[in-house]
Amino acid sequence: MVELTRRRAIEDVASDLFRDRGYAGTSIRDIARALSLQGASLYAHVTSKEDVLWAIVERAAARFEAAAAASEREAEARRPGDAVEALSALVRAHVDVLTADVDEASVFVHEWRSLGPERRATILERRDAYQHRFRTHIEEGMGVGAFALTDPSIAAMTILSALNGVAAWYDPAGRLPAHRIADHLVDLTMRMLEAPR
Amino acid sequence: MVELTRRRAIEDVASDLFRDRGYAGTSIRDIARALSLQGASLYAHVTSKEDVLWAIVERAAARFEAAAAASEREAEARRPGDAVEALSALVRAHVDVLTADVDEASVFVHEWRSLGPERRATILERRDAYQHRFRTHIEEGMGVGAFALTDPSIAAMTILSALNGVAAWYDPAGRLPAHRIADHLVDLTMRMLEAPR
Repeated sequence: MVELTRRRAIEDVASDLFRDRGYAGTSIRDIARALSLQGASLYAHVTSKEDVLWAIVERAAARFEAAAAASEREAEARRPGDAVEALSALVRAHVDVLTADVDEASVFVHEWRSLGPERRATILERRDAYQHRFRTHIEEGMGVGAFALTDPSIAAMTILSALNGVAAWYDPAGRLPAHRIADHLVDLTMRMLEAPR
Repeated sequence: MVELTRRRAIEDVASDLFRDRGYAGTSIRDIARALSLQGASLYAHVTSKEDVLWAIVERAAARFEAAAAASEREAEARRPGDAVEALSALVRAHVDVLTADVDEASVFVHEWRSLGPERRATILERRDAYQHRFRTHIEEGMGVGAFALTDPSIAAMTILSALNGVAAWYDPAGRLPAHRIADHLVDLTMRMLEAPR
């Protein structure tokens, strides 16, 4: 339990540093210093900088996936088969996960490219499956005329890129609370697809 | 002249590797190997991996800035004071620069975070000035009722994030030519702002 807490503290500090200085610009020594540890004693808890990145990326991926699945179940319970409801809920869930821990989310969004080839491939697969949720609801909505006709693949990628932008600029101490930012992004996304409002 | 050509070849190979494996995952040795050089002889041309990144990022920034300025001049000549025309032209110019050299653009979009603190600050300033162009046209359009009322700062950041997504998935050998992708993104962006079409 103490070990779990320690590992989590390491990952939180590392997320903060990776967001602030980039993964390439952060050393294990920097992480140790921020925790008031010696570099050598940090290695008792982690094997490599990439392992810390991997732990952060994996936890973030799991958070996005769980929130997306829950939002889809809830949207389906509220308005069964309603693509506009499902996509709005998915957008809101995504922004909520981004703003709930923006350091971690930012590392997930920007630094997965720094993983080694195998882990990178694993995350790419999970990202594709996640993106597929967006695309499915866009296609469903287009099929019933709720969304304007467009290229559903480009629309899904463009919406996710637009949402992920929040990771770069969101500041918990900023002028807008997280739920207002989610409102804006639901609104901008739905307009993009010309959903009836 | 030969030195310039050699430096350019180094930057092109590095862009390709940085996009493919990430900046953190690419060594000077990898760049040398891709050019069939010894690591040591590469150091006759470049001082550090970060210098190569900086050269790529600076050149990309200059391309984005020049294309944006040209698009604004041309839009102003076609339809003076028309915010919809100006923003559409800016979006198209941005996507054109992204697709014209997607390796370089991808490094600019994703890896500027890997620069050291000073260069990072310099690029952030140029990115802010660039984003300001988008925001200005959004505000102008809102002022004359051409765009729906929204938060112009969030709209500008969201549009640029949406456009930059192209750097992650564009493939010159893919199913859609670059100009069709630009059409899609102009269309999605204008819908987002509910511009009259």
